[in-house]
Amino acid sequence: MAEERVKERLTLYDTTLRDGAQTTGVDFSLDDKRQIAAMLDEIGIDYVEGGYPGANPLDTEFFAQRPKLRARFAAFGMTRRQGRSVENDPGVAALLDSSADVVTFVAKSWDFQVRVALRSTEEDNLESVTQSVKVAVARGKEVAVDCEHFFDGFKANPDYALACAKAAYDADARWIVLCDTNGGTLPHEVERIVAEVVKQIPGDRVGVHCHDDTGQAVANSLAAVRAGARQIQGTLNGLGERCGNANLTTIIPTLLLKSEFSERFEIGVTQEKMTHLTRVSHALDELLNRAPNRHAPYVGASAFATKAGIHASAVLTDPRTYEHVTPESVGNVRRVLVSDQAGRSNIAAELGRLGVVLDKDDPRLARLLDEVKEKEAQGYAYEGADASFFLLAKRVLGEAPHFFDIERYSVAVDRRFARNGGFEDQGAEAIVKINVDGESRISAAEGNGPVNALDLALRKDLGAYQRFIEDVRLVDYRVRVFQGGTDAVTRVLVECADGEGERWSTVGVSANVIDASFEALVDAINYKLLVSVEREKTNSQYLKDPHRGIF
Amino acid sequence: MAEERVKERLTLYDTTLRDGAQTTGVDFSLDDKRQIAAMLDEIGIDYVEGGYPGANPLDTEFFAQRPKLRARFAAFGMTRRQGRSVENDPGVAALLDSSADVVTFVAKSWDFQVRVALRSTEEDNLESVTQSVKVAVARGKEVAVDCEHFFDGFKANPDYALACAKAAYDADARWIVLCDTNGGTLPHEVERIVAEVVKQIPGDRVGVHCHDDTGQAVANSLAAVRAGARQIQGTLNGLGERCGNANLTTIIPTLLLKSEFSERFEIGVTQEKMTHLTRVSHALDELLNRAPNRHAPYVGASAFATKAGIHASAVLTDPRTYEHVTPESVGNVRRVLVSDQAGRSNIAAELGRLGVVLDKDDPRLARLLDEVKEKEAQGYAYEGADASFFLLAKRVLGEAPHFFDIERYSVAVDRRFARNGGFEDQGAEAIVKINVDGESRISAAEGNGPVNALDLALRKDLGAYQRFIEDVRLVDYRVRVFQGGTDAVTRVLVECADGEGERWSTVGVSANVIDASFEALVDAINYKLLVSVEREKTNSQYLKDPHRGIF
Repeated sequence: MAEERVKERLTLYDTTLRDGAQTTGVDFSLDDKRQIAAMLDEIGIDYVEGGYPGANPLDTEFFAQRPKLRARFAAFGMTRRQGRSVENDPGVAALLDSSADVVTFVAKSWDFQVRVALRSTEEDNLESVTQSVKVAVARGKEVAVDCEHFFDGFKANPDYALACAKAAYDADARWIVLCDTNGGTLPHEVERIVAEVVKQIPGDRVGVHCHDDTGQAVANSLAAVRAGARQIQGTLNGLGERCGNANLTTIIPTLLLKSEFSERFEIGVTQEKMTHLTRVSHALDELLNRAPNRHAPYVGASAFATKAGIHASAVLTDPRTYEHVTPESVGNVRRVLVSDQAGRSNIAAELGRLGVVLDKDDPRLARLLDEVKEKEAQGYAYEGADASFFLLAKRVLGEAPHFFDIERYSVAVDRRFARNGGFEDQGAEAIVKINVDGESRISAAEGNGPVNALDLALRKDLGAYQRFIEDVRLVDYRVRVFQGGTDAVTRVLVECADGEGERWSTVGVSANVIDASFEALVDAINYKLLVSVEREKTNSQYLKDPHRGIF
Repeated sequence: MAEERVKERLTLYDTTLRDGAQTTGVDFSLDDKRQIAAMLDEIGIDYVEGGYPGANPLDTEFFAQRPKLRARFAAFGMTRRQGRSVENDPGVAALLDSSADVVTFVAKSWDFQVRVALRSTEEDNLESVTQSVKVAVARGKEVAVDCEHFFDGFKANPDYALACAKAAYDADARWIVLCDTNGGTLPHEVERIVAEVVKQIPGDRVGVHCHDDTGQAVANSLAAVRAGARQIQGTLNGLGERCGNANLTTIIPTLLLKSEFSERFEIGVTQEKMTHLTRVSHALDELLNRAPNRHAPYVGASAFATKAGIHASAVLTDPRTYEHVTPESVGNVRRVLVSDQAGRSNIAAELGRLGVVLDKDDPRLARLLDEVKEKEAQGYAYEGADASFFLLAKRVLGEAPHFFDIERYSVAVDRRFARNGGFEDQGAEAIVKINVDGESRISAAEGNGPVNALDLALRKDLGAYQRFIEDVRLVDYRVRVFQGGTDAVTRVLVECADGEGERWSTVGVSANVIDASFEALVDAINYKLLVSVEREKTNSQYLKDPHRGIF
């Protein structure tokens, strides 16, 4: 059609495996790197920077067994050092000899940095760029040059910063990447400076690399695109040194869902691939054993959650009232939080999300609402405890089988202190006696602490149900004390996971932290049993009631 | 001087206590609200929005006992409802009768919302704004109007959105606040739309309220200021519904440290007050039992951390090479994997805050720094545990008397469950054996739970020191679990208070929640004894060393 504008191609370059490895507390294994590269490929990233071959054994090995990727595979490293010829620089040789399609050289473009950090001269630095790019191009590599400190450099000495960029361009680098290395540049500065650069270098050769030190890495990246840059470098979940790199998990949906960008640009990530984004984001956190950021744009567990009563009823009337994009577009879900303001429609919506379809006029809904209110008055909170809410609902609906009874438990912690203040004994012990199908079973366990000991004893012998809980593990535990009337009430939230990576949260409330913990642990086990048993049924028999599906 | 431009005043309006209360998992107590209001006041926020009096008992009580603040105190609520006269609307009455200086009305400015969410007419909505503002102005309140969905409304129907804003302005509202309620607006759209608004309403009457659903709430707020708005609404640590509100903890340093803003604007937060920002940010997270975001701009533990070898040595040569602002400016510290000067001066500053004056070259300071680093590596966190930090410092300085030794303790919880699921026994019991001045004393106590029992047994018989602790009570108790290496580590924070209303917080760390709790309880008692004994000395004898004052 004549009216349809031809879209420009915008490329995404991921540096999770290189700059993301600088994140405090992140320490990739070789297998982590392979899994992350596969995730990046799955969602349609154009370039995957694998690391710095030659700089450390891990990265060298990762490049030695090149991952199979649809994306271009990039190796990062320095231009030839001062005082060396480019042919005689082992760092450059490692890049050229690597399995990478793309060599990404980092080169300083701030004269102050050249003198202070490199202790080199401005001329030698330019020559190093020219020579390094030329030799890599001659070896058939696609070449990118990360102009380190470009924006700070441009503000201090625009001519020198531009000379660095031009040297890379003139030597035939495919991408000249302007880096806000210290992360302190503001969006309108990025826009102004990129606009200056694209007067000298075509925009489709210019990329941008931003850090989040003023909380504006996403805005800076998009400002650069508005000014003419055509490559964005970033990381999954915004991993990276200090405050992190530009978060591709936020940038991708903005590019695909906001008309200003979606009408002008095409990216490698399709609408279909983007529906995997929430899962990929959480899988990365899981891999790194980090708690996912609930409040992350688009992919956070709370990104489409509504708590307030008035907002909640409006969202249920028409989601556009409080949602700027649909949760489905990024593979996320709408959550209307159960809270003390909860009404019937909130509860029905939450049940729907958990796979329990119930008519709004079903009298059991009113009973469930009363039950939730009663529990919340005692100190229970179901916002962070989906599994306990699900169990409560199933019980009220008469759909929760009774798996076992607790007959008793006891916990003991004994400490004798040595003269120097150390412990003579480090453990805690617990005994749990349960009744499964009419048969009493008593188990004892030692643990690091009383909750660990109770957890182990509780899950030691569940008879016929034992096989369902073998792979369950406790992954998070939180306690808060509330003043409930004259007495303090303790609320414990427990998160468990199983071997398939599923996670669920439960809540317990009592004046006694051990009782509250035990209650949450028992809920966690009951939830797992309920889900497992229903799943087995679903797999083995014809579903008589189409409304009771898999949850 | 003739050359110095007169700076314009930019005001900051905090809604942590209202919009921040919508954060998933956040559940303020009355005491939390009071403490947060005091923190906001401490850093120099202009307006503190306390909540929604009349909407829930908590907010009503908070307004009933008005906190003492330097800041303007604002109450949030709706304009008069459809079908009611403004004089006969209990919601409006609750706002007018409240202790607030400022009434902030929320009013829809998107015609679609007026019809779908309010089920009202466009005309009635405008009248509601006019009437509500007028009646509040007549009652002597300063009035702000939050134009909900302003940016989406403007894009759909600019005339109607502007009519709403104009209605508020014409009725003499002091502030017309443009809200990006769904958080989906992009910075350049904000800039363009605010520029349109300030053609009709003076910019010094215009505010902006942004949400972080595209990760650009900070950029959007600053874009609005660039376009002419003169009030920013936001929250501490970016608390808020879904992805959160504009993060004032990020915006404040950007306004004060980035020349484009600092040269043009003046805000209520001074450079000196900003040095408390990191502490306040972490104290808020402690209060809410949330893990502070390590990667938060400016205040995150990693915001000035350098991991990379080359970067680290450059940072030590000249911090400007990899820092866009100085960590000291926001009360944060540089963290490099090398022992550093910044740590020392930070610790000295912390001690100074607690009343212990120490020379920067005192060799004991280096010992203390080592001790703190060692403890923090084990999982201790002193940001929320001043009293434990104080004790640690006093011990390293050789100024902490030894009051008692723990010989042993034991705790037992036993539960037998009745058929109906109830407990047959509700208590927990503890035995604590201590040695005071060479004499062993054993005490037992029953409590609601093991921590309560331990606390009671520990404080039952401290011999000569008993009189100092008679009025101590445990007022708060928080637990968080961390992954420390392969094992989970439990951190317990305990807050105690005495009869004079003094409060102090201590920390304990262990794999075992009971051990960690006990450690924090012992610290709490030791702190109280230390303070009491020093106070007695101060009162009864001549002070030889003027530097060792009351703390």
